[in-house]
This record gives sequence, structure tokens and C-alpha cells, in this order.
Amino acid sequence: MNTTRAKDYTQWYQEVVQIADLAENSAVRGCMVIKPWGMGIWERVQRLLDDRIKATGHENCYFPLFVPVGLFLKEAEHVEGFAKEMALVTHTRLRIVDGKARLEGELEEPLVVRPTSETIIAESFAQWIHSHRDLPVLVNQWANVVRWELRPRLFLRTTEFLWQEGHTAHAEAAEAAEEAARMLEVYRELMEERLALPVAVGEKAAHERFPGAVATYSLEAMMQDGKALQAGTSHYLGQGFAKAAGIQFQDKDGQLRHVHTTSWGVTTRLIGAVIMAHADDDGLRLPPAIAPSQVVVVPILREESDRGPVTEYCGRLAAELKARSFQGEPLRVRVDLRDRKPQDKRWEWIKKGAPLVVEVGPRDMAKGEVCWSARTEPSKKNFAGLAAFVDAAPGILDSMQSGMRARAQAYRDAAIRTDIRDFAALKAYFTPKAGFLGPDGAGAPGWVRAHWCGDPASLAPLDELGVTVRNIPFDQKGPGTCVLTGKPAEREVYFARAY
Amino acid sequence: MNTTRAKDYTQWYQEVVQIADLAENSAVRGCMVIKPWGMGIWERVQRLLDDRIKATGHENCYFPLFVPVGLFLKEAEHVEGFAKEMALVTHTRLRIVDGKARLEGELEEPLVVRPTSETIIAESFAQWIHSHRDLPVLVNQWANVVRWELRPRLFLRTTEFLWQEGHTAHAEAAEAAEEAARMLEVYRELMEERLALPVAVGEKAAHERFPGAVATYSLEAMMQDGKALQAGTSHYLGQGFAKAAGIQFQDKDGQLRHVHTTSWGVTTRLIGAVIMAHADDDGLRLPPAIAPSQVVVVPILREESDRGPVTEYCGRLAAELKARSFQGEPLRVRVDLRDRKPQDKRWEWIKKGAPLVVEVGPRDMAKGEVCWSARTEPSKKNFAGLAAFVDAAPGILDSMQSGMRARAQAYRDAAIRTDIRDFAALKAYFTPKAGFLGPDGAGAPGWVRAHWCGDPASLAPLDELGVTVRNIPFDQKGPGTCVLTGKPAEREVYFARAY
Repeated sequence: MNTTRAKDYTQWYQEVVQIADLAENSAVRGCMVIKPWGMGIWERVQRLLDDRIKATGHENCYFPLFVPVGLFLKEAEHVEGFAKEMALVTHTRLRIVDGKARLEGELEEPLVVRPTSETIIAESFAQWIHSHRDLPVLVNQWANVVRWELRPRLFLRTTEFLWQEGHTAHAEAAEAAEEAARMLEVYRELMEERLALPVAVGEKAAHERFPGAVATYSLEAMMQDGKALQAGTSHYLGQGFAKAAGIQFQDKDGQLRHVHTTSWGVTTRLIGAVIMAHADDDGLRLPPAIAPSQVVVVPILREESDRGPVTEYCGRLAAELKARSFQGEPLRVRVDLRDRKPQDKRWEWIKKGAPLVVEVGPRDMAKGEVCWSARTEPSKKNFAGLAAFVDAAPGILDSMQSGMRARAQAYRDAAIRTDIRDFAALKAYFTPKAGFLGPDGAGAPGWVRAHWCGDPASLAPLDELGVTVRNIPFDQKGPGTCVLTGKPAEREVYFARAY
Repeated sequence: MNTTRAKDYTQWYQEVVQIADLAENSAVRGCMVIKPWGMGIWERVQRLLDDRIKATGHENCYFPLFVPVGLFLKEAEHVEGFAKEMALVTHTRLRIVDGKARLEGELEEPLVVRPTSETIIAESFAQWIHSHRDLPVLVNQWANVVRWELRPRLFLRTTEFLWQEGHTAHAEAAEAAEEAARMLEVYRELMEERLALPVAVGEKAAHERFPGAVATYSLEAMMQDGKALQAGTSHYLGQGFAKAAGIQFQDKDGQLRHVHTTSWGVTTRLIGAVIMAHADDDGLRLPPAIAPSQVVVVPILREESDRGPVTEYCGRLAAELKARSFQGEPLRVRVDLRDRKPQDKRWEWIKKGAPLVVEVGPRDMAKGEVCWSARTEPSKKNFAGLAAFVDAAPGILDSMQSGMRARAQAYRDAAIRTDIRDFAALKAYFTPKAGFLGPDGAGAPGWVRAHWCGDPASLAPLDELGVTVRNIPFDQKGPGTCVLTGKPAEREVYFARAY
């Protein structure tokens, strides 16, 4: 790569996206093209998360892309929250006159391209729910959403992005709150165990709630520049959407009551999080659990006569690897037969973050061996007999997975300050600009965990630092003194710069 | 059901969609809500087709939802084909004043919500492709698309629908034509072997080609009212899109040449096809290969004390069934524990088309038995020991799958007339309105297979009959006489009414 993390972190990120061939900008500003390797990662996340969403009793549905403006207006806070970033459909026909386009067929009521689906789904819930026997309703959809972005960045902030959004309705407030917590835990397990991404789980401060929510919970991950990235959210929505849409049920005593709803989602932003947490100065590094191919086999053909036997040997290696499993699934193995130089192919897969790359040439074949390298030590070439490598592969992937998690955890923990007690110290800590944190956590500011009184007015001095309250972690140690005001404060929060 | 196929076929279709709880209309005219059971069927189709798309060497990508109007204008035929049914985005902000919405942030160039993605994907291809070594490019995406519908019908014709669209680029015309044929065969196999839907495979007549295509191939399925439904298409696009977008490569001799492209897609319309081909007067019938649940277990609890042991017995039955497989996958089994009457639940699953419904009460449990019925004979209750039923289940599903296919095939074949030689006979055949064909094929017109000279002007008399040329089947027997003009004709075509 041309740029290292230490030299220019922002530029480095863009280069990783490009060099790993994950995505690119399109003809529509802010909308990205997700390329096969990037889409492969998203498909892995989808498969893993979809299994978990179904295992917790949810079913997938599909709701319309368009929401009539009038439906949005029913929930005042909600519409205010999204009004400045909506794609609005106003016409339904083009007329081509002399090769130029004129808009025709103006709609009576404009349609919003969904930025999220609470309002349109509430309309369906109002029709589906009549009695307490109809509850809970537990649905999810995989969809594209649009929020107009003025400063787009691939994966991190795009006008169109892909996500799943879960939506549920419950008879009781406590059940809805439990649901919001349950899905937060599903996300945490996915992120920590599969994406190798340690996350700080907690509640958002009141001023950072989802528009229309009673409580918003988030998972915050630390990037290698010390910034926080909100990797997922889960909302307890109370009865606001239910009242706006009239979602009522007859309870066991025959009384009509409004339901309590939740919603929760993660997006293609997770791919940005994986890049920023795990990639290095050689390119992407992928946790084996979400790598589209966990092992890539590169045949080395020195002469045309090698092609047949070496390709066959590689095919046998791939077949034997696929018969092994990692985390309960068969290994994902690819033989790269493209017409390119083997050394170029090997480095391409290293840059793409494939966990294991195996090279096989005629000499390896003659000895019944393979030459393999792990993405965690790309320059170290290891030699092993074919059968021995096949036997060892699941274990190697397993250590890579836990090693990446442990490394990310140590990296984060080294960059969380818990000893900052007043605004002067906080300001001094956050005064250096963001950059590459480095494994010792000394290259840039990380996060500060400190008490905060909860008064939004107290946050004004943070503006100049570009620092925000990320969330209020669930694990609390008791009351203390607010780092901003010196007043008594019940709870600690995370302060950080964020994506 | 209130309405039978024979009484009112159109009304019957709507009732099946409703009674099987597949989908419903939304607050946005023409956009449907796909409910869990309908989405479950689509997810099955997706999984099966995605596996096949990948097995034939394609990779999934994701391209933007929006296409700038200017890109569409580059291909004249293409834009003309879609101009009358486009959703156009013109603004990016709402301002709420006194609870009313005003549009702001007008775009300089309006964006089209993709009705299909040839133009935007061609822009990417132009960037990806430089040398013959970059070819072929073989990609696919699963996405939503929008074509404004004035007369929407759930699944069959909706303003927004879900689909996959494959897009490929090749060095040679012959390779692109081969690709279009290959994917047509993938669709045929999926439809016939998994959806149990016999299809007539052939080329579309020139006047019915996809806008911008050199050749369009289609798969036409017969519905129970004798109408044809175009279930999928594959296009050889020639170099038109390549020239419009400048997709060029340097060939082995160093010459710059335009690529040849293809595209191919199937949509959620397939669910409409499955309903119209397989459902009966009791509701939906699902081929086991695409049933979200192949076996539904309904516990019968006469007294509260039954709950524990009967539920446990049902759980054991489900676990043993899941250890069996059908078409290479574990059986999909659901235990319906909802708080409803067992008889209502049983009929609900029959109406939803679940292939096997099993009832288990305390008496069955005491005898170690189960009571099962097949959707093909819903009123016949069969009794078997638990282990015997588990052993038999995959075979029962297998016969249902092939039985449904054979029945649909026989039904279709009985309604294809090959003995019609002139327009008078054709007119007489198609004069009765569409209705329920019935297994003897006598209730309504079906299809006519006859020679046609290929002159679009000759089709005018068909307008009053509502009949069109569906496709030109690949299996031809030689020249003959045009059924419309009496002139010599090279090939036979299918004439039919269509969805």
C-alpha cells in the first residue's frame, strides 16, 4: 500500500477499500457499488445474523421501499429527525423530446424513499394486531435504505446502504424492553465472536436517541485511530408509533390498549468497522468467520505441462479442506485459476485479507507438500505435507479468529482512559488530532470513561474538541463526580470522537 | 375458501394470497407487503437459485438503487421502453411548516429508481474492463426494482418487486449467447425440478424483446386458467450497452473492441406462478422443495396436564424429522405451539400449502403414533408409528414433488392445441373468455402451438382476442404455413393470453 495508518489514516482507509476490491463510488454521488469481495463479506454477515434473528423467533418480511409523506408526518419527532436527508419521488414518467427528458405524471402526494421503516410497518401492524393472542409480532427485513449524505464515505456513510431492520410489537412495556435488550445481545455476540470486534454496550444519552424512541441502545467499537464507530442500535420505542398508527389490541380483560414496539438494525457500515479495526499496512485482514474464502489456493505453473497435474492436486487439496469445518460450517475454499502471475495472485489475496493463502507448484506436489501463509504473518512461508495442513487448517483458523479478537480487545483497552477527572484534563487528552493510535495507544486520543451528570447543556465545551458522549455502559460502578461540571453524577459514560 | 377456481378465477387468486397469508397491499398503491410465509417461499427460491448462480461462476455485487436520468438517455431504445413507468427522485429535503411538508433541495439532475440496472452496471463494467484478461465479468445482484404499475396485482404485477438480475460481459458474441442460454437452462431446471412448474423455453419475437436487447429468451408457464405467465427472461444484449457506456477491451492482438453483454432475471412473480399453477379450492399447495416448512406438527392438548408430555413428544418428532433430508437438505419442520384450536391450526396449514401436517394428541402419544395428512389429500388422515412416519417422510415428500410436477405437466399438455391451421379456427378457440381450465382442459382456452410467419403486422387481428405470441420454442419440427396469413413460415410459436 502507498499509505500507512500512521501517515494518513483517512487516506489509508480509502486505499484498503480499493486495494481489497471491496467497493467503489458510482455515477450517483453517495451511492456505492459493492464489489464481489465486499458483497461476499456482507453475505457472510447476513447469513450469520439471519440465523440468529430466526433462532430468536423472528420471521422475515418485506415492506415497501416508498413511504407516503403523510405517514411520516404522523410522528413529529420522527419526521424532524429524517427530514433533511430524504430522497423524494415526485413523478412517474419521463417524456423524451429531442433526446431530452421531461418529467411527467406528478404524484398527488410525494413518496419518501425509506430512510427506515417504522412508519410504514406500523401501518401493517395496525392491521395485523387485534387481540393479545396476536402478540408478540416479531419481524425483520433485509433491505436498502436511503439517507441523503453530504459527505459520503464508502461503507461508513453512504446515501444508500444495506441493512436489516427488526420491528416488533408487544403487549407489555417490559416485554418490549426485554426484546430490545435481547437483540442488542445478539448483535454483541455476532460482533465479538464473529467479527472479532469488541464493543461497548450501553444506552445512548437522551439527546442522541433515535427520533421517536424512548430508549436507544448502541454497540460502540473502537477503530485504530481511536475513534468510536456506532456498529449497531436497538430501540425501545414505547407507544409513540403505536399511537400515531393506531396499533391497538384487546387485552385478556377485554380492554383496548396500544402495543409497545421496538426496532433494531445493523448496516453495511459493519464492513467499514471490520476494515478500521483489523486492516493493517498490507491491506485488509478478515476474521475467518466472515471471510468469503478462508483458504485460497494459488497454483504455480512454471511450464504448460504442469497445468494438468498441479491443477488436479490443487483441486484435491480444496476438496479435502472443504470436508473440514470451522465454527460448524464446511471450510470455504477457492482455487484461483486466473491467468495471472502466482506471486501477484498471492499478494492480491493478502491485500484482500484472506486468512490462509496456499501456494502449490510442481515441486511441492512432487513432495506431497503445500506452502502456506497466514494473513497474520503474510511474509512467513510455512511448508507442510498436504494431509497435515488439511488437518491443521481448522485449528489455525480458530487461533486466528481468537487472536484477532484478543488483539482488537487489547488495542482498545490500552486506549481507554479512566483516570480523567475534570474538563481541563479531558481537553488536554483530546487536543491532539485523531491519527493512528498504535498498539501502545499513544499515537492519538482514544476514549475517556468518566462520570457525567446527564445535562445536555454541559456538553457545549465538547463541540470544539469534536467529542461526543458515545453511550452509557450497562456495567456501572456507582456514583461519582461529573467530569464536565463537577456536580454529582450517577453514571459513567464513554466520551470519544466518532464516525 | 369462498370462491372456487371455476366460479371466479381472479377472485380465487386473491383469496389464496390472503388465506395463505402470503402478502397484502400497502399504503403505497402498487407496492406490496410480503408477509412471513410469502417471504419464506421467496427465501427458498433465493437460496436455491443463488447456489446455482454461484455454481455457474457468478459472484454477487450490489449496484445503486438510483440511476441518473442522463445515463438512461444514452441507450435510446432502452429509455423509451421504461420511460412511462419510472419513479423519479427530484428532491432531497422536507421542510415541515405547521405540520405540513414542503419539498426542498431540488436535484440538478433527477434520479430514476432503477427499473433494471443495465445502464448503471455498464458504467462499472467500463471501469472494470480493460483487457481480454478481465473477461468474462460474471455478476449478479439481488435487489428491489420499481416499474410504475397502473393495474397492480399482488406478486404478478407490482410497482416494486424483488428480483435477481445477472449481468455479464464477454469478449465474443458466441460466448455471450452461450451465457444467455446457460442461465435460461438454470432457470428451467429451477422451475421444473424445484417449483414443479413445466415451462416452454424459447426466443421472444422481435417486437417483444427487452428494450435494447438483440435477443430475448423466455420461460413461459401455463396457469390453471390457460393463460401464460412469463416466469423468467434471459437477454443477449449484443454491443448496444457496451457502445453506449464505452465498455472496451484490448484483445489478444492489441485491438480495442467492445464487449458483448447479457442480462437475465427472475422476480417475486414466481410466487404468483406457483400459486396459479398449484393452488386448489382449499388454498395454496407448495412443492416441498420451496415450502418454508415441509412438515408442520400440531400438538393437540385436551387438558392442561397434556401440555408438557405432548409438547415434548412433538419436539422429539421434530428433531427426528430434522435429522432426515430431502433433496440434499435437512427437512424443514415447525411445531405450531400457538394458542389456537388444533383443528383451526391444521386447516390454516392446509390453506398455506404446507406439504405435511401432523397432529399429535395424548392418545397418539400413548400409542407411540402420529396422525398425518398430505396437502395433496388434505381430508385423508393417516396413522403411523412415530419412527415409521419419520422413515417415510422424505419419500412422501419426494412423491409429492414429482406428483405435482407431473400433474402440472399433464394439465398443461392437455391444454395445448397443435391442430389449429387458420385464423378462423384460432379465433373460435380463443373466443371463450379465460376461466378455470379444469384438468380435462375444456373449461377455457389454453395455448395454441402453430406456425407463424414472423411479420408483426400479421398480429393485428389477435388484439381483439387479447392473444399474443409467447415465444418461439427451441424444439422445432420444420417449416409450415402461417396460421395468421397462410404464407410459408419457418417456425412454430405459442399463441396465448398472458399475465
